Amino acid sequence: MKIEAVDFFYLSMPVVTTEADGSQDALLVRVSAGGHVGWGECEAAPLVSIAGFVCPMSHGACRPVGASVLGQNVESPADIARIAALIEYDSMDLLQAAHTWSGIEMALWDLLGRVADEPVYRLLGYVRAFPKTPYASQLFGNTAQETLERCRAVRAKGFRAVKCGWGPFGRLTVADDRDQLMAAREGIGPDGILLVDAGQIFGEDVEAAASRLPALEEVHATWLEEPFHGFAYEAYGALAARSAKLLLAGGEAAHNAYMARHLIDYGKIGFVQIDCGRIGGIGPAKRVADYARAKGVTYVNHTFTSHLALSASLQPFAGLAGHRLCEYPVAPKPVARELSANHLEPDANGELRLADAPGLGIEVDTGAIKRYLVETEIRVRGETLYRTPALA
Amino acid sequence: MKIEAVDFFYLSMPVVTTEADGSQDALLVRVSAGGHVGWGECEAAPLVSIAGFVCPMSHGACRPVGASVLGQNVESPADIARIAALIEYDSMDLLQAAHTWSGIEMALWDLLGRVADEPVYRLLGYVRAFPKTPYASQLFGNTAQETLERCRAVRAKGFRAVKCGWGPFGRLTVADDRDQLMAAREGIGPDGILLVDAGQIFGEDVEAAASRLPALEEVHATWLEEPFHGFAYEAYGALAARSAKLLLAGGEAAHNAYMARHLIDYGKIGFVQIDCGRIGGIGPAKRVADYARAKGVTYVNHTFTSHLALSASLQPFAGLAGHRLCEYPVAPKPVARELSANHLEPDANGELRLADAPGLGIEVDTGAIKRYLVETEIRVRGETLYRTPALA
Repeated sequence: MKIEAVDFFYLSMPVVTTEADGSQDALLVRVSAGGHVGWGECEAAPLVSIAGFVCPMSHGACRPVGASVLGQNVESPADIARIAALIEYDSMDLLQAAHTWSGIEMALWDLLGRVADEPVYRLLGYVRAFPKTPYASQLFGNTAQETLERCRAVRAKGFRAVKCGWGPFGRLTVADDRDQLMAAREGIGPDGILLVDAGQIFGEDVEAAASRLPALEEVHATWLEEPFHGFAYEAYGALAARSAKLLLAGGEAAHNAYMARHLIDYGKIGFVQIDCGRIGGIGPAKRVADYARAKGVTYVNHTFTSHLALSASLQPFAGLAGHRLCEYPVAPKPVARELSANHLEPDANGELRLADAPGLGIEVDTGAIKRYLVETEIRVRGETLYRTPALA
Repeated sequence: MKIEAVDFFYLSMPVVTTEADGSQDALLVRVSAGGHVGWGECEAAPLVSIAGFVCPMSHGACRPVGASVLGQNVESPADIARIAALIEYDSMDLLQAAHTWSGIEMALWDLLGRVADEPVYRLLGYVRAFPKTPYASQLFGNTAQETLERCRAVRAKGFRAVKCGWGPFGRLTVADDRDQLMAAREGIGPDGILLVDAGQIFGEDVEAAASRLPALEEVHATWLEEPFHGFAYEAYGALAARSAKLLLAGGEAAHNAYMARHLIDYGKIGFVQIDCGRIGGIGPAKRVADYARAKGVTYVNHTFTSHLALSASLQPFAGLAGHRLCEYPVAPKPVARELSANHLEPDANGELRLADAPGLGIEVDTGAIKRYLVETEIRVRGETLYRTPALA
């Protein structure tokens, strides 16, 4: 099957706020090959990722992503890996390339799965998909009281695990952060799983992060996520050595498998969090899952957008029974919710299972695409390199 | 001084080839503040870096670079660092941001230097600029004979050091590579400094790279550059341990100071090569120079474009007398050569010195900009987010 077309659809809420909520816009990708279609999604900055696909070549090691994709033959996962290697080399100096490619890569897996009538996790070599315990991913409230209410609300919805992140955490005093953590623990209940996301607030300040360890241990947090800049491996390693109880989590910014490996090896994290919309798609994410497993580190998806991205992010560790937690965006914006016609909902036991459906098992709702479509045009030297495609 | 405007000028040769020659296009940046002007240059993929400046916000941690720059106050280097930190946090999920910001950052140093009537290296804390030994940076010929002629030619021009890279190296047999290396050595002469750039050709295959070590040692190569993928620290470290004579070089792809530090600490490189057009500009490059010096590693610029970028890349290690080599693009394309009215030329002794001129000391030729300007327009929701600015 020859890749005939790669179409990008930039969707957005009418108003985007400075909230750390990644579900406010989306870049959907539709790949067409041999009469079949697959869908994927790139994480963040849609306009920039589109530019990475269509930009003029700067030189041989800085070619647009499109040059390595269009016209390629794709029959099996090995072809996806071959195209990925081509991009890695020929777009070496194009920083955005990994994000652009991520959505295309997902769409190629979706397409192959539909052709083979198999879910993607089976193409990855897993026999079955084990249930995951979804954690409700939400922001800390502006006050401890607000955090308490948010955590109570997700518990009432049946979630057994909650992650609170960003907001005021790390910005005020150690005592304020303790109040927030105590409120979160009270809200999710004594048996709930509590995860904390610091949103890189401590930069590389190990002492500032370490000052929050007693409260994090007191509330039995399962992990502390991204205390530092994503590349501050030394700070991660130093903090990991400061607590026997609390494990660190990180990796969402990894734009290749190497970065995730380095956080494991040098940063001594206990949970590696991979966003398939950034790391180059499902293939490199699966390699990270294999590596994590071998190193005794737990793999977790990073997903704060649509259920298409959620399904893609669950595939790489679907078959790992012991890697139990999964991120579940509990309050996505309408654009992220509506862009798929079906959704992955927790069952009566509060567990999430990937359906035994072909490809990614998610049907894109073209009506929703039309409602949220952002008309975009890029012209260079009088030629239109990109224009929002028409929808049938 | 308030930053009033940031203007991007996308320049290109009429035809861009797949040659690994980064001088075929350029993204010039002009920053205006308080009635003053400074110039900088972003490395590679101009359209994508422009998009990184103007794109709509995706969420609070994925804002366009422009949102953190326009309207900011800039009076001193501390302000440049403050804006850099703002971008690092608020554009955390915008992968291209570091490349976009690099050219702006350079321009801000240029502007501050012009206002203070001081060269940038003095604003960085250096008392004087020491002479550097420029190496002629060029591609391997398609045949050993061609490489011999190219190396003879640069020697005849007065260069005492040459770097041969890319082309067929690593793609054919070990014997072919030896022929190439012997030819390069013959061309530059027995006393010349010979550097070799493998252009990441070995991926992470340590054995493939190690099989070239005997020939590299035989020709007394001073370094082997980028044998592997830029993130393959383990492969770098393993190869470094295989030779007592040959040092490794790398770092050009670093898009933050952390990455350069990791190549030093984990990859055991002996030379760290920084491109100010990618790492976030002159400030983080200077921090890498400080770090390298403390670790006994030699700092070298990476420059394959214009003399504006060359001047910017020399500032961070201008005051380090012992860090002697500097990359010098010996055969840039006309667009890269002509975009500045003045140039940095080796003196009669074949040495290169930064002028004692304000800022970066390079005058941009607006006539050349007009000749090579690539008309570009980006429209989103009917609004023009970017259009090639008019030149007076």
